[in-house]
Amino acid sequence: MATSIKSYPVLLAMLVLSTVRAGTDADLGAKIAAQGTTDGVAPCMSCHGADGAGIAAAGYPRIAGMNADYLAKQLRDFHAGRRDHPVMTPMAKALTEDKILLVSAYYGAMAIPTVAAQPPDAEVARLAQELIAWGDWTGRGLPACSQCHAPAGNGIGAYFPGIGGQHAGYLKAQLQAWRAGTRANDPLGLMQAAAQHLTDAEIDALSAYYAAQPAAAPVPAENAPTAAAGKFSVGPDEVHAGEVVQQGPPPAGREPGEGGHFRAPPRGDLPDGPFGEAILQGQAIFGNTNAHKVSAKYVGNDQACGNCHLDAGRLAESAPLWAAWVAYPAYRSKNRKVNTYIERIQGCFTYSMNAQASAAGGPPSADSETIVSLVAYSYWLAKGAPTGDDSMPGRGYPRLKETEQGFDPERGAVVYAAKCALCHGENGAGVAQGDGRTLFPPLWGSESYNWGAGMHKIDAAAAFIRHNMPLGLADSLSDQEAWDVAAYMNSHERPQDPRHEGNLQATTERFHGGKFDYYGKRRTVEGHLLGEQPARK
Amino acid sequence: MATSIKSYPVLLAMLVLSTVRAGTDADLGAKIAAQGTTDGVAPCMSCHGADGAGIAAAGYPRIAGMNADYLAKQLRDFHAGRRDHPVMTPMAKALTEDKILLVSAYYGAMAIPTVAAQPPDAEVARLAQELIAWGDWTGRGLPACSQCHAPAGNGIGAYFPGIGGQHAGYLKAQLQAWRAGTRANDPLGLMQAAAQHLTDAEIDALSAYYAAQPAAAPVPAENAPTAAAGKFSVGPDEVHAGEVVQQGPPPAGREPGEGGHFRAPPRGDLPDGPFGEAILQGQAIFGNTNAHKVSAKYVGNDQACGNCHLDAGRLAESAPLWAAWVAYPAYRSKNRKVNTYIERIQGCFTYSMNAQASAAGGPPSADSETIVSLVAYSYWLAKGAPTGDDSMPGRGYPRLKETEQGFDPERGAVVYAAKCALCHGENGAGVAQGDGRTLFPPLWGSESYNWGAGMHKIDAAAAFIRHNMPLGLADSLSDQEAWDVAAYMNSHERPQDPRHEGNLQATTERFHGGKFDYYGKRRTVEGHLLGEQPARK
Repeated sequence: MATSIKSYPVLLAMLVLSTVRAGTDADLGAKIAAQGTTDGVAPCMSCHGADGAGIAAAGYPRIAGMNADYLAKQLRDFHAGRRDHPVMTPMAKALTEDKILLVSAYYGAMAIPTVAAQPPDAEVARLAQELIAWGDWTGRGLPACSQCHAPAGNGIGAYFPGIGGQHAGYLKAQLQAWRAGTRANDPLGLMQAAAQHLTDAEIDALSAYYAAQPAAAPVPAENAPTAAAGKFSVGPDEVHAGEVVQQGPPPAGREPGEGGHFRAPPRGDLPDGPFGEAILQGQAIFGNTNAHKVSAKYVGNDQACGNCHLDAGRLAESAPLWAAWVAYPAYRSKNRKVNTYIERIQGCFTYSMNAQASAAGGPPSADSETIVSLVAYSYWLAKGAPTGDDSMPGRGYPRLKETEQGFDPERGAVVYAAKCALCHGENGAGVAQGDGRTLFPPLWGSESYNWGAGMHKIDAAAAFIRHNMPLGLADSLSDQEAWDVAAYMNSHERPQDPRHEGNLQATTERFHGGKFDYYGKRRTVEGHLLGEQPARK
Repeated sequence: MATSIKSYPVLLAMLVLSTVRAGTDADLGAKIAAQGTTDGVAPCMSCHGADGAGIAAAGYPRIAGMNADYLAKQLRDFHAGRRDHPVMTPMAKALTEDKILLVSAYYGAMAIPTVAAQPPDAEVARLAQELIAWGDWTGRGLPACSQCHAPAGNGIGAYFPGIGGQHAGYLKAQLQAWRAGTRANDPLGLMQAAAQHLTDAEIDALSAYYAAQPAAAPVPAENAPTAAAGKFSVGPDEVHAGEVVQQGPPPAGREPGEGGHFRAPPRGDLPDGPFGEAILQGQAIFGNTNAHKVSAKYVGNDQACGNCHLDAGRLAESAPLWAAWVAYPAYRSKNRKVNTYIERIQGCFTYSMNAQASAAGGPPSADSETIVSLVAYSYWLAKGAPTGDDSMPGRGYPRLKETEQGFDPERGAVVYAAKCALCHGENGAGVAQGDGRTLFPPLWGSESYNWGAGMHKIDAAAAFIRHNMPLGLADSLSDQEAWDVAAYMNSHERPQDPRHEGNLQATTERFHGGKFDYYGKRRTVEGHLLGEQPARK
């Protein structure tokens, strides 16, 4: 955070259009925090403490070390009436945008105080851990908490706050407010939608569990819309942009599992011994393929299996593994031969995970620990499914009907900015954690799936997006929006098709026919044909 | 056959203890055939023709080019009243053993006459082909005709006559006689048992179909009990031996499919296109692994998958593939890891098919045509079976309860001679066709499964034998017989365990514990420990 403050470039009105010294900004922020302002703002520390740790018993949150953009957005939302609190609202109304920025930067840069909440008992912890790691997506359409707040609960960027180490009382009050709709300043209505699915017991468990977790610095999301390269804080224009992604009541969304789909076994229902361990390892690899110690060497980009197969391969209409398992071996026109299930998932490495650029230089072998674990996991998910049924309801992605307007990347760019850039970034690069783990997957560029992956086809991508995105708000996009944004996504350069043998035209003719494929046909803004230049990092 | 006659060593009483010239023997046989004998035997050719082709309309069989031992046995059986025919019985009664041998050798050496029966219509042919290739084992316990009469219908050795190119009327009469029990001179009652399952329509179809097939020289079975090395014909002692394996009415046998077992799809119910072709190829490889053009290079002995998995992997309690498919991946203590189905069948190549000694030097890779075809075939057989069910009724071989007497190879040798040597040969080497195809699999020696295969364990072998052998007379052995003969079989040398790293004792301790395993423990008749010397061809 210290680094960020040094490069902090915002021009403050109170300083006469000169480059400010970092020390001076911090001093100003510190002054507001400690003394308030002359126009009626009370010192922040009277409630949030000198160390910014808040007061657990009073429900005052810890703000020290939170993402400064997040803090600024909250102050701005109190100021504008988009969030309400009897104490905070009048304070924020008295703050100017300049002061909001100063005081947010001050608290964002402050060391994270140690929190000493008692961990809940084991049963409560298990309930919380299940929701944090998995949510209940297939059951209730509830995404995992970790999906947006990061696995450690430290938050991502300006829109997904750190909640690990926050006071339980505050967390509980907020979850109840999201659920009731009395707090509604979340981007896309994502948090409201999630909270609607939570029971009282779950809110209690999550609040208690997160409160006992160590707080940590949030994951930076440098490509996110309100924190674009070179900018650290949010100015008045971005406030407006912020409103675009803010939508009040959440869309109804899909209720997954309603269609009488096959259900994979409960997560905890594992066989004992080495086979159960193999299944668990397969599950871990599936969700974190590019960073898992066993599988990382076969992945040449920032993708994991779970990016395309939601709910860790369980969700119907999101290419669930249980439907794939019983449908292989099968003939595939893609490579004009009968493929075993193992060959099929080796194909995922070759294309969706661009194994050519990996340390191993290619997909894992059939007897590798990676493949064996993924096979064990897939097989277990399909427990009870009838062998040879290649049309289980919910298999693959439901085909999306074409629209009268067709698809258009220009229209798609607008959808993308409003609905997708929040997580995947304005430049499509997604967000990775320091350890290489992907939090929001990259959609194009060198770290995305390559030109041989199924997802590069606009119809496949449109179907996936329409039924699954935005995450937690599945089925909220119109067909037209899905088609357009898929076209926009796939109008960008990405890693070369591994079947390319040096001639773009030949590769295009052989593998990239049809109107749903821009490879070798459409030009980038730089003027070259897609597939002509290597995707840049 | 000409060669055999030249080496024909039997001493004929009519010649004064001198080595006879082959020409003379043939002349004597020819004389009986053409002129009969002075003591009342009519010329054979009056009914069977000068060319030995028989007379179709009269129901007189073709005998030219039949296996001479088979012909001699029939004459001997007519002579002794074990087979009956109004014309043949009095003739045979008037023949001495010497003359039986002479005339049999004469007709055995005769060129096979061309037969010109009209092929039956397509539907009849299909019915016959199905029975010839597959029988209806799982349904009725009916083995395939080709199993004993060879795929081309040309017969094997002294006990399994050539039936291709035989007259339809004769074939039909014989099948009806076997079924009715009015002909009963078959070894072990095998043919009576098979014929009991045949319908009238099937007898008609088989007779018509085989009659239209070209006749061909029978496959020699040099190791069979009555045709041991150096002997061409059967003397008085062997007549007695012949009686041992002859048992009158067939045992009841098992009625497979009665236990409500899972049923694989009907053979003809294949998907269209390349996937159906892959399944068919898998089926072909399964039955003929060591000689099939795709898979032969991975097989280092004379074994095929179908030798241990009867009815081409369909039969319950004979390690059916449909039960295995849904039970893999799984942890195996054998190699202490989770094995995919592909690794499991690679293990079959490594051990049961001794891939180390193959042209490829090891098992086929996971993406080889061989493995993909076998996977497609297995998957298809399991169509509808529930994924993950690792205890389908009929899986594997049923465990065989230990007996009070335990098992004893010496006792087993007696069982073997009476019930097994007929097909597998006195030296356990089985019978191979000229093209390398295995007709009766070798049970020990260089061409059998190696010391790492599951079948080398006496308990596994006993279970397999008890429930499946002799072929077509399943469940006719007592538990004690099965245990003893399994011990006898596995007390012989066979190819080395591929896990052996140079030290017999270490390999024994690591992989060959327990009382059901003779490796590294029991000595051969030559005095070395099993596993110490390479098995000889």
